[in-house]
Amino acid sequence: MKGDFIAVDWGTTNRRAYRITAGRAAQLERDAHGILMVAPGQFPNEAAALRARLGDLPLLCIGMVGSKRGWREVPYVEAPASLEGVADGVRWVEPERAAIVPGVSSRAMDRCDVMRGEEIQFLGANAAGFAPDGACLCQPGTHSKWARVVDGRIQEFSTALTGEFFSLLRDHSLLKEVLIGEIQLNTAFREGVREGCRQRLLSSLFGARAAHLLGARAPGEGGAYVSGLLIGSDVHSHLPPANEVYIIGDVPLAPLYAAAVLEVGGTAHLIDSGAAFLEGATRLWELIA
Amino acid sequence: MKGDFIAVDWGTTNRRAYRITAGRAAQLERDAHGILMVAPGQFPNEAAALRARLGDLPLLCIGMVGSKRGWREVPYVEAPASLEGVADGVRWVEPERAAIVPGVSSRAMDRCDVMRGEEIQFLGANAAGFAPDGACLCQPGTHSKWARVVDGRIQEFSTALTGEFFSLLRDHSLLKEVLIGEIQLNTAFREGVREGCRQRLLSSLFGARAAHLLGARAPGEGGAYVSGLLIGSDVHSHLPPANEVYIIGDVPLAPLYAAAVLEVGGTAHLIDSGAAFLEGATRLWELIA
Repeated sequence: MKGDFIAVDWGTTNRRAYRITAGRAAQLERDAHGILMVAPGQFPNEAAALRARLGDLPLLCIGMVGSKRGWREVPYVEAPASLEGVADGVRWVEPERAAIVPGVSSRAMDRCDVMRGEEIQFLGANAAGFAPDGACLCQPGTHSKWARVVDGRIQEFSTALTGEFFSLLRDHSLLKEVLIGEIQLNTAFREGVREGCRQRLLSSLFGARAAHLLGARAPGEGGAYVSGLLIGSDVHSHLPPANEVYIIGDVPLAPLYAAAVLEVGGTAHLIDSGAAFLEGATRLWELIA
Repeated sequence: MKGDFIAVDWGTTNRRAYRITAGRAAQLERDAHGILMVAPGQFPNEAAALRARLGDLPLLCIGMVGSKRGWREVPYVEAPASLEGVADGVRWVEPERAAIVPGVSSRAMDRCDVMRGEEIQFLGANAAGFAPDGACLCQPGTHSKWARVVDGRIQEFSTALTGEFFSLLRDHSLLKEVLIGEIQLNTAFREGVREGCRQRLLSSLFGARAAHLLGARAPGEGGAYVSGLLIGSDVHSHLPPANEVYIIGDVPLAPLYAAAVLEVGGTAHLIDSGAAFLEGATRLWELIA
Protein backbone atom coordinates (compact mmCIF):
# COMPACT_ATOMS: atom_id res chain seq x y z
CA MET A 1 0.00 0.00 0.00
CA LYS A 2 1.34 3.42 -0.86
CA GLY A 3 -1.14 5.57 0.94
CA ASP A 4 -4.74 6.54 0.48
CA PHE A 5 -6.16 7.73 -2.82
CA ILE A 6 -9.44 8.35 -4.59
CA ALA A 7 -10.38 5.99 -7.43
CA VAL A 8 -12.89 7.48 -9.84
CA ASP A 9 -14.82 5.29 -12.29
CA TRP A 10 -15.70 8.19 -14.58
CA GLY A 11 -18.02 7.17 -17.38
CA THR A 12 -19.97 8.96 -20.05
CA THR A 13 -23.11 9.58 -18.02
CA ASN A 14 -22.32 8.31 -14.53
CA ARG A 15 -19.52 8.47 -12.04
CA ARG A 16 -18.61 6.61 -8.89
CA ALA A 17 -15.74 7.65 -6.63
CA TYR A 18 -14.15 5.63 -3.80
CA ARG A 19 -11.83 6.85 -1.12
CA ILE A 20 -9.49 3.89 -0.74
CA THR A 21 -7.71 3.39 2.55
CA ALA A 22 -5.37 0.42 2.94
CA GLY A 23 -6.97 -1.34 -0.03
CA ARG A 24 -10.50 -0.94 1.24
CA ALA A 25 -13.27 1.40 0.23
CA ALA A 26 -13.60 3.81 3.13
CA GLN A 27 -16.13 6.03 1.38
CA LEU A 28 -18.15 5.82 -1.82
CA GLU A 29 -20.24 8.29 -3.75
CA ARG A 30 -22.18 7.87 -6.97
CA ASP A 31 -23.60 10.65 -9.09
CA ALA A 32 -24.58 11.56 -12.62
CA HIS A 33 -21.50 13.73 -13.24
CA GLY A 34 -20.38 11.69 -16.22
CA ILE A 35 -17.95 13.39 -18.58
CA LEU A 36 -20.78 14.77 -20.72
CA MET A 37 -21.95 16.77 -17.68
CA VAL A 38 -18.56 18.42 -17.26
CA ALA A 39 -17.77 21.42 -19.46
CA PRO A 40 -14.36 21.30 -21.16
CA GLY A 41 -11.85 22.94 -18.86
CA GLN A 42 -13.90 22.21 -15.75
CA PHE A 43 -12.29 18.87 -14.90
CA PRO A 44 -9.77 20.38 -12.40
CA ASN A 45 -12.70 21.99 -10.58
CA GLU A 46 -14.58 18.69 -10.53
CA ALA A 47 -11.47 17.04 -9.08
CA ALA A 48 -11.24 19.70 -6.39
CA ALA A 49 -14.91 19.20 -5.53
CA LEU A 50 -14.37 15.43 -5.19
CA ARG A 51 -11.42 16.05 -2.85
CA ALA A 52 -13.46 18.47 -0.80
CA ARG A 53 -15.96 15.68 -0.14
CA LEU A 54 -13.76 12.56 -0.03
CA GLY A 55 -10.47 13.90 1.32
CA ASP A 56 -7.48 15.82 0.01
CA LEU A 57 -5.95 12.84 -1.80
CA PRO A 58 -4.53 11.99 -5.21
CA LEU A 59 -7.02 10.90 -7.86
CA LEU A 60 -6.84 7.85 -10.09
CA CYS A 61 -9.26 8.57 -12.95
CA ILE A 62 -10.54 5.58 -14.90
CA GLY A 63 -12.88 5.29 -17.87
CA MET A 64 -14.18 7.68 -20.50
CA VAL A 65 -12.48 10.52 -18.64
CA GLY A 66 -9.45 9.49 -20.74
CA SER A 67 -11.28 9.87 -24.06
CA LYS A 68 -11.23 12.82 -26.46
CA ARG A 69 -14.26 14.31 -24.71
CA GLY A 70 -12.80 13.77 -21.23
CA TRP A 71 -10.20 15.54 -19.09
CA ARG A 72 -7.38 14.57 -21.43
CA GLU A 73 -7.18 11.97 -24.18
CA VAL A 74 -4.86 9.16 -23.15
CA PRO A 75 -3.88 6.70 -25.89
CA TYR A 76 -5.11 3.12 -25.62
CA VAL A 77 -2.74 0.36 -24.56
CA GLU A 78 -2.87 -2.47 -27.06
CA ALA A 79 -4.04 -5.95 -26.05
CA PRO A 80 -2.75 -8.30 -24.72
CA ALA A 81 -2.68 -5.84 -21.82
CA SER A 82 -1.57 -6.42 -18.22
CA LEU A 83 -1.88 -4.13 -15.20
CA GLU A 84 1.81 -3.30 -15.72
CA GLY A 85 1.12 -2.34 -19.33
CA VAL A 86 -1.82 -0.20 -18.31
CA ALA A 87 0.35 1.42 -15.60
CA ASP A 88 2.92 2.35 -18.25
CA GLY A 89 0.21 4.13 -20.20
CA VAL A 90 -1.09 6.20 -17.28
CA ARG A 91 -0.72 9.98 -17.75
CA TRP A 92 -0.56 12.50 -14.91
CA VAL A 93 -2.69 15.56 -15.55
CA GLU A 94 -1.84 17.11 -12.19
CA PRO A 95 1.67 16.04 -11.12
CA GLU A 96 1.35 13.45 -8.32
CA ARG A 97 -2.24 14.61 -7.78
CA ALA A 98 -4.33 13.27 -10.64
CA ALA A 99 -3.62 10.42 -13.04
CA ILE A 100 -5.64 9.19 -16.01
CA VAL A 101 -5.72 5.53 -16.95
CA PRO A 102 -5.57 4.53 -20.62
CA GLY A 103 -8.11 2.21 -22.17
CA VAL A 104 -7.26 -0.96 -24.05
CA SER A 105 -7.54 -1.45 -27.80
CA SER A 106 -7.45 -4.53 -29.95
CA ARG A 107 -6.83 -4.91 -33.66
CA ALA A 108 -7.44 -8.55 -34.28
CA MET A 109 -7.27 -9.72 -37.88
CA ASP A 110 -10.99 -9.44 -38.42
CA ARG A 111 -12.18 -6.69 -36.13
CA CYS A 112 -11.16 -3.73 -33.98
CA ASP A 113 -12.34 -3.10 -30.45
CA VAL A 114 -11.78 -0.67 -27.59
CA MET A 115 -12.59 -0.30 -23.91
CA ARG A 116 -12.11 2.45 -21.34
CA GLY A 117 -12.65 1.53 -17.71
CA GLU A 118 -13.72 -2.10 -17.97
CA GLU A 119 -10.06 -3.20 -18.11
CA ILE A 120 -9.67 -2.36 -14.42
CA GLN A 121 -12.49 -4.71 -13.45
CA PHE A 122 -11.34 -7.49 -15.78
CA LEU A 123 -7.76 -7.29 -14.52
CA GLY A 124 -8.90 -6.83 -10.92
CA ALA A 125 -11.17 -9.89 -11.04
CA ASN A 126 -8.39 -11.98 -12.52
CA ALA A 127 -5.74 -10.75 -10.07
CA ALA A 128 -8.00 -11.38 -7.09
CA GLY A 129 -8.88 -14.87 -8.27
CA PHE A 130 -12.61 -14.03 -8.51
CA ALA A 131 -12.58 -16.15 -11.67
CA PRO A 132 -10.18 -18.89 -12.78
CA ASP A 133 -7.36 -17.84 -15.07
CA GLY A 134 -8.52 -17.91 -18.70
CA ALA A 135 -12.22 -17.86 -17.82
CA CYS A 136 -14.76 -16.05 -19.98
CA LEU A 137 -15.62 -12.76 -18.26
CA CYS A 138 -18.57 -10.56 -19.13
CA GLN A 139 -19.51 -7.02 -18.11
CA PRO A 140 -23.09 -6.30 -19.19
CA GLY A 141 -23.97 -2.70 -19.98
CA THR A 142 -24.88 -0.16 -22.64
CA HIS A 143 -21.96 -1.75 -24.43
CA SER A 144 -21.42 -5.22 -23.02
CA LYS A 145 -17.82 -6.35 -22.83
CA TRP A 146 -16.56 -9.92 -23.04
CA ALA A 147 -12.94 -10.80 -22.30
CA ARG A 148 -10.55 -13.59 -21.59
CA VAL A 149 -7.81 -12.74 -19.09
CA VAL A 150 -4.91 -15.16 -19.12
CA ASP A 151 -2.00 -14.93 -16.75
CA GLY A 152 -2.83 -11.34 -15.81
CA ARG A 153 -3.33 -10.12 -19.37
CA ILE A 154 -6.48 -9.18 -21.24
CA GLN A 155 -5.82 -11.54 -24.11
CA GLU A 156 -8.83 -10.85 -26.30
CA PHE A 157 -12.10 -9.01 -25.92
CA SER A 158 -15.24 -8.10 -27.76
CA THR A 159 -17.91 -5.45 -27.25
CA ALA A 160 -21.57 -5.65 -28.27
CA LEU A 161 -23.86 -2.65 -28.34
CA THR A 162 -26.67 -4.64 -26.74
CA GLY A 163 -27.90 -2.06 -24.24
CA GLU A 164 -27.62 0.86 -26.63
CA PHE A 165 -29.57 -1.06 -29.24
CA PHE A 166 -32.36 -1.80 -26.75
CA SER A 167 -32.63 1.92 -25.96
CA LEU A 168 -32.68 2.82 -29.66
CA LEU A 169 -35.54 0.39 -30.26
CA ARG A 170 -37.49 1.59 -27.24
CA ASP A 171 -37.05 5.30 -27.93
CA HIS A 172 -37.04 5.62 -31.71
CA SER A 173 -38.24 2.51 -33.55
CA LEU A 174 -41.54 1.04 -34.70
CA LEU A 175 -41.11 -1.40 -31.80
CA LYS A 176 -41.67 1.47 -29.38
CA GLU A 177 -45.24 0.37 -28.68
CA VAL A 178 -44.10 -3.22 -28.15
CA LEU A 179 -41.37 -2.41 -25.65
CA ILE A 180 -43.54 -1.69 -22.69
CA GLY A 181 -43.85 -3.47 -19.40
CA GLU A 182 -41.31 -4.26 -16.77
CA ILE A 183 -38.42 -6.46 -17.84
CA GLN A 184 -38.87 -9.55 -15.77
CA LEU A 185 -37.23 -12.93 -15.69
CA ASN A 186 -40.32 -14.62 -17.07
CA THR A 187 -41.33 -16.97 -19.87
CA ALA A 188 -41.30 -14.15 -22.43
CA PHE A 189 -37.70 -13.33 -21.53
CA ARG A 190 -36.70 -16.99 -21.89
CA GLU A 191 -38.48 -17.28 -25.25
CA GLY A 192 -36.59 -14.18 -26.37
CA VAL A 193 -33.27 -15.72 -25.32
CA ARG A 194 -33.96 -18.88 -27.31
CA GLU A 195 -34.96 -16.90 -30.40
CA GLY A 196 -31.86 -14.71 -29.93
CA CYS A 197 -29.66 -17.79 -30.15
CA ARG A 198 -30.90 -18.36 -33.70
CA GLN A 199 -28.91 -15.27 -34.70
CA ARG A 200 -31.40 -13.80 -37.11
CA LEU A 201 -31.82 -10.65 -35.10
CA LEU A 202 -33.23 -8.36 -37.79
CA SER A 203 -36.08 -10.78 -38.54
CA SER A 204 -36.62 -11.76 -34.92
CA LEU A 205 -37.23 -8.11 -34.07
CA PHE A 206 -39.80 -7.71 -36.81
CA GLY A 207 -41.37 -10.94 -35.57
CA ALA A 208 -41.80 -9.31 -32.15
CA ARG A 209 -43.71 -6.48 -33.77
CA ALA A 210 -45.86 -8.89 -35.78
CA ALA A 211 -46.64 -10.91 -32.65
CA HIS A 212 -47.82 -7.67 -31.07
CA LEU A 213 -50.00 -6.77 -34.07
CA LEU A 214 -51.50 -10.26 -34.17
CA GLY A 215 -52.06 -10.38 -30.42
CA ALA A 216 -49.85 -13.45 -30.12
CA ARG A 217 -47.98 -12.18 -27.08
CA ALA A 218 -49.53 -10.74 -23.93
CA PRO A 219 -49.33 -6.93 -23.86
CA GLY A 220 -46.64 -5.89 -21.44
CA GLU A 221 -44.42 -8.86 -22.25
CA GLY A 222 -42.81 -7.28 -25.31
CA GLY A 223 -40.08 -5.59 -23.29
CA ALA A 224 -39.04 -8.81 -21.59
CA TYR A 225 -39.13 -10.72 -24.89
CA VAL A 226 -36.96 -8.23 -26.80
CA SER A 227 -34.60 -7.86 -23.86
CA GLY A 228 -34.20 -11.64 -23.91
CA LEU A 229 -33.72 -11.57 -27.66
CA LEU A 230 -30.84 -9.10 -27.55
CA ILE A 231 -29.17 -10.56 -24.47
CA GLY A 232 -29.62 -14.08 -25.86
CA SER A 233 -27.99 -13.09 -29.13
CA ASP A 234 -25.14 -11.39 -27.24
CA VAL A 235 -24.58 -14.39 -24.93
CA HIS A 236 -24.86 -16.93 -27.73
CA SER A 237 -22.23 -15.25 -29.87
CA HIS A 238 -19.76 -14.97 -26.99
CA LEU A 239 -20.30 -18.18 -25.05
CA PRO A 240 -17.02 -20.12 -24.79
CA PRO A 241 -16.81 -23.85 -25.55
CA ALA A 242 -16.98 -24.64 -21.83
CA ASN A 243 -20.30 -22.72 -21.56
CA GLU A 244 -19.12 -21.11 -18.33
CA VAL A 245 -19.33 -17.35 -17.84
CA TYR A 246 -18.21 -15.06 -14.98
CA ILE A 247 -20.44 -11.99 -14.97
CA ILE A 248 -19.03 -8.84 -13.42
CA GLY A 249 -22.03 -6.63 -12.84
CA ASP A 250 -24.87 -5.22 -10.84
CA VAL A 251 -28.63 -5.38 -10.86
CA PRO A 252 -30.63 -5.36 -13.03
CA LEU A 253 -28.42 -6.47 -15.93
CA ALA A 254 -26.23 -9.10 -14.26
CA PRO A 255 -29.16 -11.39 -13.29
CA LEU A 256 -30.64 -11.04 -16.79
CA TYR A 257 -27.36 -12.11 -18.36
CA ALA A 258 -27.03 -14.96 -15.85
CA ALA A 259 -30.54 -16.17 -16.70
CA ALA A 260 -29.70 -16.07 -20.41
CA VAL A 261 -26.54 -18.11 -19.84
CA LEU A 262 -28.60 -20.68 -17.92
CA GLU A 263 -31.27 -20.75 -20.64
CA VAL A 264 -28.71 -21.72 -23.25
CA GLY A 265 -27.43 -24.54 -21.06
CA GLY A 266 -24.43 -22.77 -19.58
CA THR A 267 -23.23 -21.96 -16.08
CA ALA A 268 -23.11 -18.38 -14.78
CA HIS A 269 -21.10 -17.03 -11.84
CA LEU A 270 -21.67 -13.54 -10.49
CA ILE A 271 -18.84 -11.23 -9.46
CA ASP A 272 -19.51 -7.96 -7.67
CA SER A 273 -18.42 -5.16 -9.97
CA GLY A 274 -17.44 -2.84 -7.11
CA ALA A 275 -15.15 -5.48 -5.62
CA ALA A 276 -13.47 -6.12 -8.98
CA PHE A 277 -13.03 -2.39 -9.53
CA LEU A 278 -11.47 -1.84 -6.09
CA GLU A 279 -9.10 -4.71 -6.57
CA GLY A 280 -7.95 -3.50 -9.99
CA ALA A 281 -7.67 0.16 -8.97
CA THR A 282 -5.69 -0.66 -5.81
CA ARG A 283 -3.23 -2.89 -7.64
CA LEU A 284 -2.77 -0.31 -10.38
CA TRP A 285 -2.17 2.43 -7.82
CA GLU A 286 0.56 0.35 -6.23
CA LEU A 287 2.31 0.25 -9.59
CA ILE A 288 2.24 3.98 -10.27
CA ALA A 289 2.17 5.83 -6.96
CA MET B 1 -59.91 -7.16 -68.41
CA LYS B 2 -62.80 -5.54 -66.65
CA GLY B 3 -62.18 -1.93 -67.46
CA ASP B 4 -59.73 0.71 -66.37
CA PHE B 5 -58.89 1.37 -62.74
CA ILE B 6 -56.37 3.14 -60.56
CA ALA B 7 -54.01 0.97 -58.50
CA VAL B 8 -52.54 2.76 -55.52
CA ASP B 9 -49.50 1.43 -53.71
CA TRP B 10 -50.17 3.42 -50.55
CA GLY B 11 -47.42 3.06 -48.00
CA THR B 12 -46.56 4.69 -44.71
CA THR B 13 -44.51 7.57 -46.13
CA ASN B 14 -44.78 7.22 -49.90
CA ARG B 15 -47.43 6.55 -52.48
CA ARG B 16 -47.45 5.59 -56.12
CA ALA B 17 -50.61 5.49 -58.22
CA TYR B 18 -51.07 3.94 -61.67
CA ARG B 19 -53.93 4.42 -64.06
CA ILE B 20 -54.22 0.96 -65.56
CA THR B 21 -55.74 0.60 -69.00
CA ALA B 22 -56.04 -2.88 -70.50
CA GLY B 23 -53.44 -4.25 -68.12
CA ARG B 24 -50.89 -1.56 -68.86
CA ALA B 25 -49.81 1.48 -66.89
CA ALA B 26 -51.19 4.41 -68.84
CA GLN B 27 -50.17 6.99 -66.25
CA LEU B 28 -48.08 6.95 -63.09
CA GLU B 29 -47.53 9.41 -60.29
CA ARG B 30 -45.41 9.17 -57.18
CA ASP B 31 -45.59 11.44 -54.20
CA ALA B 32 -44.94 11.59 -50.48
CA HIS B 33 -48.63 11.33 -49.51
CA GLY B 34 -48.13 8.21 -47.46
CA ILE B 35 -50.83 7.41 -44.92
CA LEU B 36 -49.07 9.39 -42.19
CA MET B 37 -49.52 12.53 -44.30
CA VAL B 38 -53.28 12.02 -44.54
CA ALA B 39 -55.37 13.19 -41.59
CA PRO B 40 -57.95 10.65 -40.36
CA GLY B 41 -61.17 11.23 -42.27
CA GLN B 42 -59.39 12.79 -45.24
CA PHE B 43 -58.92 9.57 -47.24
CA PRO B 44 -62.07 10.10 -49.38
CA ASN B 45 -60.75 13.57 -50.31
CA GLU B 46 -57.36 12.08 -51.20
CA ALA B 47 -59.13 9.53 -53.39
CA ALA B 48 -61.08 12.29 -55.13
CA ALA B 49 -57.86 14.23 -55.74
CA LEU B 50 -56.24 11.14 -57.27
CA ARG B 51 -59.24 10.68 -59.58
CA ALA B 52 -59.11 14.34 -60.57
CA ARG B 53 -55.56 13.81 -61.82
CA LEU B 54 -55.63 10.23 -63.12
CA GLY B 55 -59.21 9.81 -64.30
CA ASP B 56 -62.63 9.21 -62.75
CA LEU B 57 -62.03 5.51 -62.13
CA PRO B 58 -62.40 2.99 -59.32
CA LEU B 59 -59.47 2.72 -56.91
CA LEU B 60 -57.70 -0.41 -55.76
CA CYS B 61 -55.83 0.62 -52.60
CA ILE B 62 -52.91 -1.58 -51.55
CA GLY B 63 -50.53 -1.41 -48.62
CA MET B 64 -50.54 0.32 -45.25
CA VAL B 65 -53.72 2.13 -46.29
CA GLY B 66 -55.43 -1.02 -44.93
CA SER B 67 -53.80 -0.73 -41.49
CA LYS B 68 -55.26 0.76 -38.33
CA ARG B 69 -53.77 4.14 -39.20
CA GLY B 70 -55.03 4.00 -42.82
CA TRP B 71 -58.36 4.54 -44.54
CA ARG B 72 -59.90 1.50 -42.90
CA GLU B 73 -58.32 -1.46 -41.13
CA VAL B 74 -58.77 -4.60 -43.22
CA PRO B 75 -57.90 -7.89 -41.49
CA TYR B 76 -54.92 -9.86 -42.73
CA VAL B 77 -55.41 -12.98 -44.84
CA GLU B 78 -53.46 -15.84 -43.34
CA ALA B 79 -50.62 -17.54 -45.26
CA PRO B 80 -50.51 -19.64 -47.38
CA ALA B 81 -52.24 -16.87 -49.36
CA SER B 82 -53.19 -16.84 -53.04
CA LEU B 83 -54.53 -13.96 -55.16
CA GLU B 84 -57.95 -15.57 -54.77
CA GLY B 85 -57.57 -15.60 -51.00
CA VAL B 86 -56.47 -11.97 -51.00
CA ALA B 87 -59.43 -11.11 -53.27
CA ASP B 88 -61.78 -12.67 -50.73
CA GLY B 89 -60.39 -10.38 -48.06
CA VAL B 90 -60.78 -7.16 -50.06
CA ARG B 91 -63.15 -4.62 -48.47
CA TRP B 92 -64.99 -1.88 -50.37
CA VAL B 93 -64.87 1.46 -48.61
CA GLU B 94 -66.78 3.22 -51.38
CA PRO B 95 -69.18 0.76 -53.08
CA GLU B 96 -67.73 -0.17 -56.51
CA ARG B 97 -65.51 2.90 -56.29
CA ALA B 98 -62.72 2.16 -53.79
CA ALA B 99 -61.49 -1.17 -52.47
CA ILE B 100 -58.84 -1.90 -49.87
CA VAL B 101 -56.64 -4.96 -50.12
CA PRO B 102 -55.83 -6.96 -46.97
CA GLY B 103 -52.28 -7.80 -46.00
CA VAL B 104 -51.01 -11.28 -45.27
CA SER B 105 -50.12 -12.67 -41.86
CA SER B 106 -48.24 -15.74 -40.79
CA ARG B 107 -48.16 -17.56 -37.47
CA ALA B 108 -45.54 -20.19 -37.99
CA MET B 109 -44.61 -22.30 -34.99
CA ASP B 110 -41.68 -20.14 -34.01
CA ARG B 111 -42.53 -16.64 -35.18
CA CYS B 112 -45.25 -14.29 -36.37
CA ASP B 113 -45.00 -12.05 -39.41
CA VAL B 114 -47.12 -9.61 -41.41
CA MET B 115 -47.02 -7.72 -44.70
CA ARG B 116 -49.22 -5.09 -46.30
CA GLY B 117 -48.62 -4.36 -49.95
CA GLU B 118 -45.69 -6.61 -50.74
CA GLU B 119 -48.06 -9.56 -51.31
CA ILE B 120 -49.20 -7.98 -54.58
CA GLN B 121 -45.67 -7.89 -55.94
CA PHE B 122 -44.82 -11.39 -54.72
CA LEU B 123 -47.99 -12.87 -56.20
CA GLY B 124 -47.68 -10.76 -59.35
CA ALA B 125 -44.08 -11.84 -59.97
CA ASN B 126 -45.05 -15.48 -59.48
CA ALA B 127 -48.15 -15.27 -61.69
CA ALA B 128 -46.23 -13.54 -64.47
CA GLY B 129 -43.42 -16.08 -64.33
CA PHE B 130 -40.83 -13.41 -63.52
CA ALA B 131 -39.33 -16.04 -61.19
CA PRO B 132 -39.62 -19.83 -61.21
CA ASP B 133 -42.30 -21.32 -59.00
CA GLY B 134 -40.96 -21.85 -55.49
CA ALA B 135 -38.05 -19.45 -55.94
CA CYS B 136 -36.76 -17.31 -53.08
CA LEU B 137 -38.08 -13.77 -53.60
CA CYS B 138 -36.83 -10.68 -51.79
CA GLN B 139 -38.16 -7.13 -51.56
CA PRO B 140 -35.52 -4.90 -49.96
CA GLY B 141 -36.77 -1.90 -48.01
CA THR B 142 -37.20 -0.27 -44.63
CA HIS B 143 -38.51 -3.70 -43.71
CA SER B 144 -37.12 -6.22 -46.18
CA LYS B 145 -39.45 -9.06 -47.08
CA TRP B 146 -38.44 -12.57 -48.10
CA ALA B 147 -40.98 -15.04 -49.44
CA ARG B 148 -41.44 -18.30 -51.23
CA VAL B 149 -44.42 -18.42 -53.57
CA VAL B 150 -45.43 -21.92 -54.58
CA ASP B 151 -48.18 -22.66 -57.06
CA GLY B 152 -49.62 -19.16 -56.73
CA ARG B 153 -49.54 -19.04 -52.94
CA ILE B 154 -47.30 -17.13 -50.58
CA GLN B 155 -46.22 -20.20 -48.66
CA GLU B 156 -43.92 -18.66 -46.08
CA PHE B 157 -42.32 -15.28 -45.55
CA SER B 158 -40.06 -13.38 -43.21
CA THR B 159 -39.44 -9.70 -42.60
CA ALA B 160 -36.23 -8.08 -41.34
CA LEU B 161 -36.05 -4.51 -40.11
CA THR B 162 -32.78 -3.95 -41.96
CA GLY B 163 -33.50 -0.51 -43.41
CA GLU B 164 -35.14 0.84 -40.28
CA PHE B 165 -32.19 -0.32 -38.21
CA PHE B 166 -29.74 1.46 -40.51
CA SER B 167 -31.71 4.70 -40.08
CA LEU B 168 -31.81 4.26 -36.29
CA LEU B 169 -28.04 3.85 -36.19
CA ARG B 170 -27.42 6.80 -38.48
CA ASP B 171 -29.81 9.18 -36.73
CA HIS B 172 -29.61 8.25 -33.06
CA SER B 173 -26.71 5.99 -32.14
CA LEU B 174 -23.06 6.38 -31.20
CA LEU B 175 -22.31 5.16 -34.73
CA LYS B 176 -23.71 8.44 -36.09
CA GLU B 177 -20.24 9.83 -36.72
CA VAL B 178 -19.19 6.61 -38.45
CA LEU B 179 -22.14 6.45 -40.83
CA ILE B 180 -21.05 9.16 -43.19
CA GLY B 181 -20.12 8.97 -46.84
CA GLU B 182 -22.03 7.75 -49.84
CA ILE B 183 -23.04 4.11 -49.79
CA GLN B 184 -21.13 2.63 -52.67
CA LEU B 185 -20.55 -0.85 -53.93
CA ASN B 186 -16.94 -0.82 -52.85
CA THR B 187 -14.49 -2.90 -50.82
CA ALA B 188 -15.86 -1.55 -47.53
CA PHE B 189 -19.37 -2.71 -48.49
CA ARG B 190 -18.07 -6.18 -49.38
CA GLU B 191 -16.12 -6.41 -46.11
CA GLY B 192 -19.31 -5.48 -44.29
CA VAL B 193 -21.25 -8.22 -46.08
CA ARG B 194 -18.69 -10.85 -45.12
CA GLU B 195 -18.70 -9.73 -41.48
CA GLY B 196 -22.53 -9.66 -41.55
CA CYS B 197 -22.55 -13.33 -42.52
CA ARG B 198 -20.87 -14.15 -39.22
CA GLN B 199 -24.14 -13.24 -37.50
CA ARG B 200 -22.69 -11.45 -34.51
CA LEU B 201 -24.33 -8.19 -35.40
CA LEU B 202 -24.21 -6.48 -32.00
CA SER B 203 -20.44 -6.93 -31.77
CA SER B 204 -19.80 -6.25 -35.45
CA LEU B 205 -21.46 -2.86 -35.05
CA PHE B 206 -19.32 -1.93 -32.08
CA GLY B 207 -16.33 -3.12 -34.10
CA ALA B 208 -17.24 -0.58 -36.79
CA ARG B 209 -17.12 2.17 -34.18
CA ALA B 210 -13.80 0.92 -32.83
CA ALA B 211 -12.32 0.79 -36.34
CA HIS B 212 -13.34 4.44 -36.70
CA LEU B 213 -11.77 5.43 -33.36
CA LEU B 214 -8.55 3.57 -34.19
CA GLY B 215 -8.39 4.98 -37.72
CA ALA B 216 -8.49 1.46 -39.17
CA ARG B 217 -11.06 2.31 -41.85
CA ALA B 218 -10.91 5.26 -44.23
CA PRO B 219 -13.24 8.07 -43.14
CA GLY B 220 -16.28 8.09 -45.37
CA GLU B 221 -16.33 4.31 -45.74
CA GLY B 222 -18.24 3.64 -42.53
CA GLY B 223 -21.62 4.01 -44.18
CA ALA B 224 -20.83 1.48 -46.90
CA TYR B 225 -19.35 -0.95 -44.36
CA VAL B 226 -22.32 -0.85 -41.99
CA SER B 227 -24.77 -1.01 -44.90
CA GLY B 228 -22.95 -4.14 -46.08
CA LEU B 229 -23.00 -5.51 -42.54
CA LEU B 230 -26.78 -5.23 -42.17
CA ILE B 231 -27.63 -6.34 -45.70
CA GLY B 232 -25.12 -9.20 -45.44
CA SER B 233 -26.69 -10.38 -42.19
CA ASP B 234 -30.17 -10.12 -43.74
CA VAL B 235 -29.16 -12.01 -46.90
CA HIS B 236 -27.21 -14.66 -45.01
CA SER B 237 -30.09 -15.53 -42.72
CA HIS B 238 -32.57 -15.84 -45.62
CA LEU B 239 -30.51 -17.37 -48.40
CA PRO B 240 -32.12 -20.62 -49.57
CA PRO B 241 -30.10 -23.82 -50.03
CA ALA B 242 -29.89 -23.18 -53.79
CA ASN B 243 -28.29 -19.75 -53.11
CA GLU B 244 -30.49 -18.18 -55.79
CA VAL B 245 -32.51 -15.05 -55.05
CA TYR B 246 -34.99 -13.04 -57.15
CA ILE B 247 -34.90 -9.45 -55.99
CA ILE B 248 -38.00 -7.35 -56.61
CA GLY B 249 -36.86 -3.79 -56.18
CA ASP B 250 -35.52 -0.49 -57.37
CA VAL B 251 -32.34 1.51 -57.02
CA PRO B 252 -30.51 2.00 -54.75
CA LEU B 253 -31.41 -1.00 -52.58
CA ALA B 254 -31.88 -3.73 -55.19
CA PRO B 255 -28.29 -3.52 -56.53
CA LEU B 256 -26.91 -3.50 -52.96
CA TYR B 257 -28.85 -6.67 -52.15
CA ALA B 258 -27.75 -8.24 -55.43
CA ALA B 259 -24.11 -7.43 -54.66
CA ALA B 260 -24.48 -8.99 -51.20
CA VAL B 261 -25.96 -12.16 -52.69
CA LEU B 262 -23.02 -12.37 -55.10
CA GLU B 263 -20.52 -11.74 -52.28
CA VAL B 264 -21.80 -14.75 -50.36
CA GLY B 265 -21.48 -16.94 -53.43
CA GLY B 266 -25.08 -16.85 -54.60
CA THR B 267 -26.89 -15.81 -57.76
CA ALA B 268 -29.13 -12.75 -57.90
CA HIS B 269 -31.83 -11.94 -60.45
CA LEU B 270 -33.47 -8.53 -60.58
CA ILE B 271 -37.20 -8.05 -61.12
CA ASP B 272 -38.67 -4.62 -61.73
CA SER B 273 -40.90 -3.81 -58.79
CA GLY B 274 -43.30 -1.71 -60.88
CA ALA B 275 -43.86 -4.56 -63.34
CA ALA B 276 -44.53 -7.04 -60.51
CA PHE B 277 -46.94 -4.60 -58.87
CA LEU B 278 -48.87 -3.98 -62.11
CA GLU B 279 -49.15 -7.68 -62.78
CA GLY B 280 -50.43 -8.46 -59.29
CA ALA B 281 -52.81 -5.50 -59.14
CA THR B 282 -54.29 -6.24 -62.56
CA ARG B 283 -54.87 -9.92 -61.78
CA LEU B 284 -56.40 -9.04 -58.43
CA TRP B 285 -58.70 -6.48 -60.07
CA GLU B 286 -59.95 -9.12 -62.49
CA LEU B 287 -60.98 -11.22 -59.52
CA ILE B 288 -62.95 -8.55 -57.71
CA ALA B 289 -64.25 -6.03 -60.25
